[in-house]
Amino acid sequence: MSYSGVINKYLEYLPFTEGVRPVTLLEGNTPLIEADNLRDELKAPCKIFLKFEGANPTGSFKDRGMTVAITEAVHRNAEAVICASTGNTSASAAAYAAKAGLQAFVILPKGKIAVGKLAQALIYGAKVIEIDGNFDDALRIVREIGEKTNVVIVNSINPFRIEGQKTASFEILETLGSSPTHHSLPVGNAGNITAYWKGYKEWASKKHSSLPKMLGFQAEGSAPIFHGKIIEHPETVATAIRIGNPASWKLAVQALDESKGQINIVTDSEILEAQRVIARTEGIFCEPASASSVAGLRNLLNKRYFTGKDVVVCTLTGNGLKDPDTASRGITPPLTAAPSLSEVLNLMNLN
Amino acid sequence: MSYSGVINKYLEYLPFTEGVRPVTLLEGNTPLIEADNLRDELKAPCKIFLKFEGANPTGSFKDRGMTVAITEAVHRNAEAVICASTGNTSASAAAYAAKAGLQAFVILPKGKIAVGKLAQALIYGAKVIEIDGNFDDALRIVREIGEKTNVVIVNSINPFRIEGQKTASFEILETLGSSPTHHSLPVGNAGNITAYWKGYKEWASKKHSSLPKMLGFQAEGSAPIFHGKIIEHPETVATAIRIGNPASWKLAVQALDESKGQINIVTDSEILEAQRVIARTEGIFCEPASASSVAGLRNLLNKRYFTGKDVVVCTLTGNGLKDPDTASRGITPPLTAAPSLSEVLNLMNLN
Repeated sequence: MSYSGVINKYLEYLPFTEGVRPVTLLEGNTPLIEADNLRDELKAPCKIFLKFEGANPTGSFKDRGMTVAITEAVHRNAEAVICASTGNTSASAAAYAAKAGLQAFVILPKGKIAVGKLAQALIYGAKVIEIDGNFDDALRIVREIGEKTNVVIVNSINPFRIEGQKTASFEILETLGSSPTHHSLPVGNAGNITAYWKGYKEWASKKHSSLPKMLGFQAEGSAPIFHGKIIEHPETVATAIRIGNPASWKLAVQALDESKGQINIVTDSEILEAQRVIARTEGIFCEPASASSVAGLRNLLNKRYFTGKDVVVCTLTGNGLKDPDTASRGITPPLTAAPSLSEVLNLMNLN
Repeated sequence: MSYSGVINKYLEYLPFTEGVRPVTLLEGNTPLIEADNLRDELKAPCKIFLKFEGANPTGSFKDRGMTVAITEAVHRNAEAVICASTGNTSASAAAYAAKAGLQAFVILPKGKIAVGKLAQALIYGAKVIEIDGNFDDALRIVREIGEKTNVVIVNSINPFRIEGQKTASFEILETLGSSPTHHSLPVGNAGNITAYWKGYKEWASKKHSSLPKMLGFQAEGSAPIFHGKIIEHPETVATAIRIGNPASWKLAVQALDESKGQINIVTDSEILEAQRVIARTEGIFCEPASASSVAGLRNLLNKRYFTGKDVVVCTLTGNGLKDPDTASRGITPPLTAAPSLSEVLNLMNLN
């Protein structure tokens, strides 16, 4: 049978019963790429695989959780769905709500977000309401609406999101035929590292696979878990992980502890450099936040953390096309030549 | 075995032998989505499926042809690859060249293209050379370089591109279990409609499947095949099909004739409206050019062209994230409210 999305594929691991009608855009089934060029570039002794979640329908891993959250919302006859998010979550929520025939609402603090950042959610038909207040006000109102109406919250406090996101672990286990020894991830709201670990554990309990060490990387200016305290004004070029008080903080720490992994920080320049290296060696254009998984890997390689027996998977959480401007900052501008063969050949500088 | 790209999957249909080492980013294997919401919206009697090629690694169908072209270039020890393209082709060429460890060159007329449009090719490491001349000068120099050096041209004059692109037909045939009755496509350089038809015919000759009617749609201001003459200054908001003298003109006409299909035109406003309808009903954000396949379908539905027995596949050639600005023009801006539950609920206008 042809592929029909993560709910049908992994139904036995999800909180649905046979006969559920998934709201799916055929998310999941994303490439796991053996990154030999990157391994050479980083002089790594271990194998490196990249899980490219940017290939999902709306361009990020959020789609795995959203198919589950929206399917569940339909199941309980939600009137609409709502979230307070500016980026990948609102895009994914809007797309899956559209497919479900539900209205999506996005609540935001006024004037904080450029409309361009919201283009994706808007084109999918989400209604965006800006309030005269800050992000906490927006979240408070979203929670109140979730309590007092039949509108379902699809922010990360919705537990069905993590259920869907864990399916990425299953795909990796199936493709590799066994668990990697290490799994490296960007950490923002910390839902994804929580979800991957849940996935690895559930698979292990059913199929007796081994477990990887979880490696989490936060941006230097936005590293509440690493520092063990809420960051009031988080800053990083990697907007998808610019979060000062992660929703899944405790569960992420548990994943790191149980797996004997570690959390660490990477600088913005390490992130942007990693983004370029991934693009130039492997032909994969990921979001800045995604590249923190490889930036962190590189730092650990410099500390000789890995051996030749290790197999490391890095998740690239989102598509670089979501934020081409940030990536463009560090790139070489075009050269100019007269329209003559010799001049162009000269600039090409062939051996 | 896990999915390993279109060359391994469809080797018997491609000009390679066993043992070829594909340069792959795991392109292909893209979603074919049954578009029931769109069918309802368009009041269509037939089934409609959307083949979302925006899920490919660089965000367009070009990756299918590029894996074949770059693999062949490596096979004959190319020193580098080169193209004169501003959009999806240069992005795809740059990505696959990066994976192959080859330098990619992009030759362009100076000042005609915003650097932002090239961000994707540049981040993958392509070298861009702008010449003081027009697009014909750029193409002439590319051809000369292809003749006089060991640099391989990966523009659409490279026949291996079409070989790879035809694999999209195979995926559709496998997923549906039979041929659709009609296949609707945007037509620019006309390589894709040529490739799909080649794919359908080759599958039919091996597996005795039936053949679809090919339906091609050009933008009104850029419709050389429809009008039967070269358009000196093609214009359309759908930049990916803004082509006045298609490379695969004759083969496209042959595909239309052999399949008893038709070529037609769609206006820019029909294209943009179709782009919004696809996003709002199916949760899929495609490039403007892609939407011409659905805009054309809509026009034919209005003429009662289809019956209840028909199965129509529309190819959505590229990811909307490649050009969010065009899509943003027609969307509703955010509303504003005080930070109070009642005000927000009022704006949400729930039933």
